[in-house]
Amino acid sequence: MKVAKPTLPKGTRDFLPEEMRKRQYIFNIIESHFKKFGFLPVETPAQENLSVLSGKYGEEGDQLMFRILNSGDFLKDISPDSLTGGYKNVLPYISEKALRYDLTVPFARMVVMHQHEINFPFKRYQIQPVWRADRPQKGRYREFYQCDADVIGSDSLLLEAELITLYYEIFSALNLKVNILLNNRKILTALSIYLGIPEQLTEFTIILDKLDKIGIAGVVEAWNAKGFPESVGEAFINLDIKSTSHLDFRNTINRFQVLFSDIPVGLEGLSELITVWELLPHFNRTLQQHVSLDFTLARGLNYYTGAILEVKSLDTEMGSIGGGGRYDNLTGLFGLPGISGMGISLGADRIYDVIEAAGKFPEYLISAVQVLLIYFDDQTLPATLKVLQELRNAGISAEIYPDQKKIGKQYEFAAKKNIPWVGLIGTSELSTQTLKVKYLPTGAEYSWDIPSFISEIKKAK
Amino acid sequence: MKVAKPTLPKGTRDFLPEEMRKRQYIFNIIESHFKKFGFLPVETPAQENLSVLSGKYGEEGDQLMFRILNSGDFLKDISPDSLTGGYKNVLPYISEKALRYDLTVPFARMVVMHQHEINFPFKRYQIQPVWRADRPQKGRYREFYQCDADVIGSDSLLLEAELITLYYEIFSALNLKVNILLNNRKILTALSIYLGIPEQLTEFTIILDKLDKIGIAGVVEAWNAKGFPESVGEAFINLDIKSTSHLDFRNTINRFQVLFSDIPVGLEGLSELITVWELLPHFNRTLQQHVSLDFTLARGLNYYTGAILEVKSLDTEMGSIGGGGRYDNLTGLFGLPGISGMGISLGADRIYDVIEAAGKFPEYLISAVQVLLIYFDDQTLPATLKVLQELRNAGISAEIYPDQKKIGKQYEFAAKKNIPWVGLIGTSELSTQTLKVKYLPTGAEYSWDIPSFISEIKKAK
Repeated sequence: MKVAKPTLPKGTRDFLPEEMRKRQYIFNIIESHFKKFGFLPVETPAQENLSVLSGKYGEEGDQLMFRILNSGDFLKDISPDSLTGGYKNVLPYISEKALRYDLTVPFARMVVMHQHEINFPFKRYQIQPVWRADRPQKGRYREFYQCDADVIGSDSLLLEAELITLYYEIFSALNLKVNILLNNRKILTALSIYLGIPEQLTEFTIILDKLDKIGIAGVVEAWNAKGFPESVGEAFINLDIKSTSHLDFRNTINRFQVLFSDIPVGLEGLSELITVWELLPHFNRTLQQHVSLDFTLARGLNYYTGAILEVKSLDTEMGSIGGGGRYDNLTGLFGLPGISGMGISLGADRIYDVIEAAGKFPEYLISAVQVLLIYFDDQTLPATLKVLQELRNAGISAEIYPDQKKIGKQYEFAAKKNIPWVGLIGTSELSTQTLKVKYLPTGAEYSWDIPSFISEIKKAK
Repeated sequence: MKVAKPTLPKGTRDFLPEEMRKRQYIFNIIESHFKKFGFLPVETPAQENLSVLSGKYGEEGDQLMFRILNSGDFLKDISPDSLTGGYKNVLPYISEKALRYDLTVPFARMVVMHQHEINFPFKRYQIQPVWRADRPQKGRYREFYQCDADVIGSDSLLLEAELITLYYEIFSALNLKVNILLNNRKILTALSIYLGIPEQLTEFTIILDKLDKIGIAGVVEAWNAKGFPESVGEAFINLDIKSTSHLDFRNTINRFQVLFSDIPVGLEGLSELITVWELLPHFNRTLQQHVSLDFTLARGLNYYTGAILEVKSLDTEMGSIGGGGRYDNLTGLFGLPGISGMGISLGADRIYDVIEAAGKFPEYLISAVQVLLIYFDDQTLPATLKVLQELRNAGISAEIYPDQKKIGKQYEFAAKKNIPWVGLIGTSELSTQTLKVKYLPTGAEYSWDIPSFISEIKKAK
């Protein structure tokens, strides 16, 4: 067989054990919190029909989807004429499926298909990769994991408070400092009314959403370029909207209650924010300190109908490491309207980068395997295998070096694999039924029987 | 937006929580054993370059791969003439990648690419989905999970014995009865020499591999159809090869040592089998009882060079639920020859079906969430949320019904979600700082304070 050059597709990655262990640490913390909060796991297939995905992510999404070529003879029954007129014309003839682009649309599809098996309100979590043919760059990959938790089938504001709590507890468990930004779609609607451009709500917020990147001057300029009256920018600047600390919550709400006194949707949004805010301390006494109002937060407006959430890392300048919100009509896309949902999403790859940059991965992750047993010789092998079996039966990750190589080489293997304990049974240990044990981090040596060895490992863990 | 019909691609599945919990149970047992045996996790991307995958799985594999259409304008720079001459001619112009077809070839690719970062002998495990455009049927899906453990960089026969042990311990932990079949490629080579058809080794074994399905008469007929001398079938039948219990191991080996006395490769195969066999009791005292010699076992011969393994379920007639073997030149495909490896694979979906058919999933899996708290009224809500927080802090999966609906409806929700404990704080419980608790499986009711509730839940778990 011809030798092939080993290569990886652009924007994709192999994960070697060291990185995998760190990723598993993140996923385990996220998943155990999802479970503790009563969320149940689901999974959907990597491939979805284009009839399900198309048009759900805007034009950009349709561009960036990875499409699957139809199986077998994909040109069978296709006339050559169908293959002209540009690739967009050809596409429907040769591809019916694409790779999952996010977890939300497949979840909505699943809920509608299985609506009679599902017990609403349905709390589900889902941790799976998604694929986007984005231009790869630092921190942006073509395959990456999303971790989503959603509750569907209830419009209770308890859920907003509970999901903010869930966010906070996950990031606390990961030892990360975060600021959770909170807004409400109804505030954005009210702002567009207040500024006299209710018909331009979408353009207004799409541009406003870029505030972080282009600053207020850039936002006003972009509004002007869209043909908004100049008064809009001025009036907006005069509103002096800032992300506020928890100490300013009341003042901000009070100020806008006056401004929105004639705008019912605005008052409704403020009232929802107050309810959520007042629930927070009942979930976690100090939680309000980590939540800020931000009336400029928009995030995919056309999708959210109530609360809008975003999580910013305070450990590094990494932008958003999570986002979510309330949506009232997601399953309506698939013919089941009127089911309100509230969800959050965590970007595992970006969280990884934040923890790495902040140097906050726990030390213990480097040692996956606890014990290496030396292959000394064939006479002592049976006794060594007996130790191996007892270590494993005690739940300790252990291995024997498979070849009878020089002992120095075997120790070197343990050091490279970050295995802390090395055990050896030589001829004299065989007669005394002990092990010669070396603890590599300190170099200390011991002579132990098996039960002592096991208990020392468990103590050190 | 137009309403889309919710559909799933042929041969793919959604996993709802009940099924997910059972799948996680299987994956957790497999993964925890992989770890205990010193294997380290890796992952590779779902998409691989066709230059890496093509030709590695035979013609059938090339047919069954899901190909990814090139991103963007996939017809740019392609002349219309290139789109003629049948789909196989068109393919290379419009597709450069395909979905992972197994875990072994991507692993070999990864080892070669990362050879300088890897500490050999490298024990890795990998649990990821693979995709095949097979005709869907009962138990066969287009997306399914493989769970592989391999050691690469050592030809020690200790590894054969260790991986047989690993198989046995995983299936024991899953409460499944299995028979592990053992053969060696060198025995098959020797058989072809003994039967006088050394040049036809491949055809000989491909047909022999079907023995289970078509019986000995069918095998002989197929050999004859391939033009083998009729004497081959006769001689083979006279060999009276049977899958043997551990009690027959010695007799079988002795008999073939005589038959192969002039065939060195056969004697070498037998000697390897003896070494592995004699190592087994040192890993697990009773292990030999679950291992059988089967000199007809072939499994993808062109790939295995030494030991060949297959696991058969004894709980149901489900065929193979795992397989593996020794390969001496897998990384040679990518330009790194001479690295011997030994690996096993488990088919999670088929294992699921076996456990389900045998009724062997543990009872406790039905209850993912331990406690539902009733949303009684807004006066008692803060006290109820305090309980919720304390339960979760104690590591108990708990939730509150998000809406203040009729209490009967909330109990019904708990029953449907298989939540065993329901806690309620009404007005009188508020004054006595207790909860009214109902244990749904028996209907028993209690009045407890929070610490008692927590300790009772932990006791019952």
